[in-house]
Amino acid sequence: MKDPMNKPANQQKKDSSAVTPRAQDYAQWYLDVIKNASLAEHSPVRGCMVIRPHGYAIWEKMQRELDDRFKATGHENAYFPLFIPLSYLAQEEKHASGFAKECAVITHHRLKSIDGAIVPDPESKLEEPLVVRPTSETIIWAQYKGWIQSYRDLPLLINQWANVVRWEMRTRLFLRTAEFLWQEGHTAHATETEAREEVARMLDVYADFAENVMAVPVVKGTKTEGERFAGALDTVCIEGMMQDGKALQMGTSHYLGQNFSRSADVKFQNREGQLEYVYATSWGVSTRLIGALIMTHSDDAGLVLPPRLAPIQVVIVPIYKTDEEMARTTEEARKVAAELKAQGVAVRVDERDGMMPGAKYYEWEGKGVPLRIEVGPKDLEKGSLCVARRFLADIPGETPEQQRKRRKAFLPRAEAIASIKPTLDAMQKELLEKARAFRASRTRVIDTLEAYEKFFREEGGGFAWVHWAGTAEQEDEMAKRFETSIRCIPFDDQIPAEARGEGKCILTGKPSAKRVLMSKSY
Amino acid sequence: MKDPMNKPANQQKKDSSAVTPRAQDYAQWYLDVIKNASLAEHSPVRGCMVIRPHGYAIWEKMQRELDDRFKATGHENAYFPLFIPLSYLAQEEKHASGFAKECAVITHHRLKSIDGAIVPDPESKLEEPLVVRPTSETIIWAQYKGWIQSYRDLPLLINQWANVVRWEMRTRLFLRTAEFLWQEGHTAHATETEAREEVARMLDVYADFAENVMAVPVVKGTKTEGERFAGALDTVCIEGMMQDGKALQMGTSHYLGQNFSRSADVKFQNREGQLEYVYATSWGVSTRLIGALIMTHSDDAGLVLPPRLAPIQVVIVPIYKTDEEMARTTEEARKVAAELKAQGVAVRVDERDGMMPGAKYYEWEGKGVPLRIEVGPKDLEKGSLCVARRFLADIPGETPEQQRKRRKAFLPRAEAIASIKPTLDAMQKELLEKARAFRASRTRVIDTLEAYEKFFREEGGGFAWVHWAGTAEQEDEMAKRFETSIRCIPFDDQIPAEARGEGKCILTGKPSAKRVLMSKSY
Repeated sequence: MKDPMNKPANQQKKDSSAVTPRAQDYAQWYLDVIKNASLAEHSPVRGCMVIRPHGYAIWEKMQRELDDRFKATGHENAYFPLFIPLSYLAQEEKHASGFAKECAVITHHRLKSIDGAIVPDPESKLEEPLVVRPTSETIIWAQYKGWIQSYRDLPLLINQWANVVRWEMRTRLFLRTAEFLWQEGHTAHATETEAREEVARMLDVYADFAENVMAVPVVKGTKTEGERFAGALDTVCIEGMMQDGKALQMGTSHYLGQNFSRSADVKFQNREGQLEYVYATSWGVSTRLIGALIMTHSDDAGLVLPPRLAPIQVVIVPIYKTDEEMARTTEEARKVAAELKAQGVAVRVDERDGMMPGAKYYEWEGKGVPLRIEVGPKDLEKGSLCVARRFLADIPGETPEQQRKRRKAFLPRAEAIASIKPTLDAMQKELLEKARAFRASRTRVIDTLEAYEKFFREEGGGFAWVHWAGTAEQEDEMAKRFETSIRCIPFDDQIPAEARGEGKCILTGKPSAKRVLMSKSY
Repeated sequence: MKDPMNKPANQQKKDSSAVTPRAQDYAQWYLDVIKNASLAEHSPVRGCMVIRPHGYAIWEKMQRELDDRFKATGHENAYFPLFIPLSYLAQEEKHASGFAKECAVITHHRLKSIDGAIVPDPESKLEEPLVVRPTSETIIWAQYKGWIQSYRDLPLLINQWANVVRWEMRTRLFLRTAEFLWQEGHTAHATETEAREEVARMLDVYADFAENVMAVPVVKGTKTEGERFAGALDTVCIEGMMQDGKALQMGTSHYLGQNFSRSADVKFQNREGQLEYVYATSWGVSTRLIGALIMTHSDDAGLVLPPRLAPIQVVIVPIYKTDEEMARTTEEARKVAAELKAQGVAVRVDERDGMMPGAKYYEWEGKGVPLRIEVGPKDLEKGSLCVARRFLADIPGETPEQQRKRRKAFLPRAEAIASIKPTLDAMQKELLEKARAFRASRTRVIDTLEAYEKFFREEGGGFAWVHWAGTAEQEDEMAKRFETSIRCIPFDDQIPAEARGEGKCILTGKPSAKRVLMSKSY
């Protein structure tokens, strides 16, 4: 994937920050991409990660895009407490058994020095322990009781940006950490119909964000009972395919029915003057999306970012040998930057002195900056600029020479500057197309267990469209045999043409109305 | 303060959501303003508040303004763990004694059902308890050790937006809560000079934000040793005056010297090739600023917001009796809204049916919306709009009639629309001027204990500029006698002309080089 043209010879050998090729060790590749791009790292605090500035800047761009969409669909942000009393968590039975397990439990509110050691002060023991929120349904619905009296107070459309904690034994940066950042929408409605519309609306918001901002194609569908959110009547989700063929659940939206309004006793007076329990939804996405972004687009040279999520879309590197050249090329770099900034492009001039241009290219490449502009003395003479792309879509039949020219183009100055925004837009589309093509190449319509076994054991696996009519126990059997699960029961319009129609369950032979999506997953 | 013109008769009597006058009960007035504006409320979780959408929208506007300023001064955002191991907190001695006291202590990581009750699972007891961060110096500096090797890695300029917890026995919405939201900057520098410049720079950012965005005038100065941040060599602050004459500390910036780099062992190779401990700063502001905003500007009719922080700057209320009038006035209201939106004004059309215009005026007034536009059938006929201001600056000698016209103006449509942005700008300035005038009216230069006593016991108190050369014990004596403290040792340019110069300590008579700022405080 890496173009030797992009790198000076001294950078081509393996160095300490290099990235392990995907084919060699996918899990290590993932960690290397993160480290090489300075996105995040483990902290000494068990299971908690540190999100470094470049990683956090991506999260901020995701937040802005999502938040704009939430507000455009009528939602407002609010903030609820970090702590949940044990008794609250226990209110909704299924929710409790789902979440009241591995969590951070606060038992004391003071420290004390005893025999020279700082310990929790025994006298500060809480009457009722508190749990750090793993999700906020219970605490939020306790508050909604005071906010909702009549149908006029509905719908109540609220979102919260927050940190949550789910104690995890085995963690993986972004994908599974004890503490993570997320948003959680919690809405209240007067009817089941309205609540279900909200559930679908927010899943569509997530799918739109995934495809058009993250450039990650997703399948929308319903979770099976076993994979449902604890306390929900229905969970719908979006599932993306990572480069190892595994599915990653990228966002979920839950129809909670009256479960939480009942346990928190939130009734409203409907238009007919009767008291009724409120209908609820919740929906969320998290910093896990950064993991999805990495595993969908990045390559053996490191991070690849879709332009719409790139904190720096264009880096400009002045190239010089003498002080006089430095002054001239830096001045031109700044001028170009100002012109691009005026167009709304996120641009940085890399003015670090004492660093070879090749080392700079290498660093920005690893950080996923979509475009690089090089400004050398010869470019000044010719009135040209060199524009290099971080990635290229394959064009069948193209010669290496043609590809090189496309990857790194020397253009007249005005033309180069005018090309930046269209190129960024094109790259955004190319990434989505590429991810779609990859997913198609790793998707099969499968009708026999033999073919299923071959796909997942010998052909690398991916998404399998199969008919299913088995029991929960038989799902477990599939998981044991193949490490696969039903990722979702897809919405009808999500099933590709060749996979539509009735058939027979791949395991039991029983009749099945439509295919489900099976895959290994994170 | 309230103009009866602004309110229909049926709203003028005291109702359940009305605001207690400041003069009657200042503390209750504060709570009433918050409740009436739906800004926040207590949660059932001890000491934790719920920030409601209108309050959170103000916080979001504050965040955006501050974050832009942080980024413009070269800072990047990152995210560090919520939890801090006990041993980390204990590393820096003074810091530990300051913060390792009232905090949330996590001792278990799992719950279990024992005899039908959910309790912390004894088998999940943590080897080392964790503390929910009260501030993040220790955990962040542990991470910086891996990020800083050479002077080339410096300065490291990082900010975090986060929630923190300091267990509080007596809480007050926004001003003092167990959990609160804040930002904390943590920077690393190669020299003391650079670090001290950063401390001053960020205090200036806070002061600029306070005065030009919040419209709250502040005094900048240095804290005395007793009020210093635990672990800092110097703490500088901005202090505002609330409407009860008390000071509120609105932001602090700390010079930490090498205290934290030493305890976390963070050394760097300087330009001369020697290893040296890094110089540190930290600085923060919190949701407490919303408390400052309320207590500086609000009146007996409820919240008053400076236009730059108003989530809704203009509300448009259609007025009608018949359905036909409703259609026409609503259409016009939407048109006006679209025109204002195109100018960048945050506008909302209040289309709620079945609600009297007076009730709407009252609600938006209580929520601090700076301008209201009324659109009635007569306005449509005349081609005019009625523009009403939430507050007015006093003009000496103005008749009530003149004031009424200024408060509620009937203007030709185009003129009205053209007036909105300049009026918002003018109101922003007027609020700052008004707050400055109030502060001046409650500020004294005081040279005798008798005058001091009279000021704080009989004249309502405020800011007192006094000479001071006492000991820490004598500071405590002043606190006991008058409930006052040294808010700061002001920077020289912060001292008003009439308070400059040397003198003698108000308590001891010892010589003093310059006056300090004394006041009661929150």
